[in-house]
Amino acid sequence: MAAAEGTAPTRIMVAVNESTLKGYPHASISSRGAFDWTLNKIVRTNTSDFKLLLLHVQVPDEDDSELIGFDDVDSIFASPEDFRTMKRRDKIRGLHLLEYFVNHCHEIGVACEAWIKIGDPKEVICHEVNHVQPDFLVVGSRGLGPFQKVFVGTVSEFCVKHADCPVMAIKRNASQTPQDPVDD
Amino acid sequence: MAAAEGTAPTRIMVAVNESTLKGYPHASISSRGAFDWTLNKIVRTNTSDFKLLLLHVQVPDEDDSELIGFDDVDSIFASPEDFRTMKRRDKIRGLHLLEYFVNHCHEIGVACEAWIKIGDPKEVICHEVNHVQPDFLVVGSRGLGPFQKVFVGTVSEFCVKHADCPVMAIKRNASQTPQDPVDD
Repeated sequence: MAAAEGTAPTRIMVAVNESTLKGYPHASISSRGAFDWTLNKIVRTNTSDFKLLLLHVQVPDEDDSELIGFDDVDSIFASPEDFRTMKRRDKIRGLHLLEYFVNHCHEIGVACEAWIKIGDPKEVICHEVNHVQPDFLVVGSRGLGPFQKVFVGTVSEFCVKHADCPVMAIKRNASQTPQDPVDD
Repeated sequence: MAAAEGTAPTRIMVAVNESTLKGYPHASISSRGAFDWTLNKIVRTNTSDFKLLLLHVQVPDEDDSELIGFDDVDSIFASPEDFRTMKRRDKIRGLHLLEYFVNHCHEIGVACEAWIKIGDPKEVICHEVNHVQPDFLVVGSRGLGPFQKVFVGTVSEFCVKHADCPVMAIKRNASQTPQDPVDD
């Protein structure tokens, strides 16, 4: 029953995002958790039998509050060029984020691919699942309580319901929960 | 990041149940699917790094209709002894079911443990997760449509929401769907 050596690797899509804590472009606690969990519990020492597909979805306006903020004179939008600058910055930021994960895969010898998409994370992740057809999807979950969920919703819950492949939602340890949910 | 050799194996709980098709004690299509998927996509050739925890939950009265049926004279309940007989038969049936999975694990050299519990499958599975603390849970899913779900509910959906570990719900292939949902 177990796949013979030499067969196609198990393709695991891992959705990763940035931390909203200061210090860009750090990965969020929950996406680092999902990534580490995948390596420690699934891939283990069998690095040749797996391939990680690392997807980062950028929300186009997620940083408006900072960019328009008074403490950052560079980010006043006065012309189309300002928006292009922003997009360029977002892109660089996303690349740095993916670099973190790709470097890790490279260090331990697991094959990977990484790419960036723009849009609503939950919709884009499900769309990419359709397109890429991974064997399963791993998403970090912030483990919000029922009260918070009403307002915030969760990407992981949406993917569990709508992604066209098995989905593993990895909850953060309670000890890793930031005091302010925004600092995630 | 990948676990070093010699560390504790990844403990995967797999919930298995019987087919409601004739020909007991065959495993249901969905639980065989979940089991095969776990071996093919997760364990692969790395048999020493995983341990399967096979749980079968028996519903006490799931076979009443057959046992009380007119075509089976043995199963008229006239005394407490009749109920004990039924329980004994259920137990034997459950053991045969688990034997199927344990034999498979043995053939490919994956460590396993198997046990039977009585009760409401979704509640019992979540309770056992708390007790046994697997690294994750794999459950087969019959992939019911929204209309069927209203009446039937699904064990997998409940576990995804309530089990205290990551849960992988493995949907059956469309080609494996029986014409009558009861024949599952």
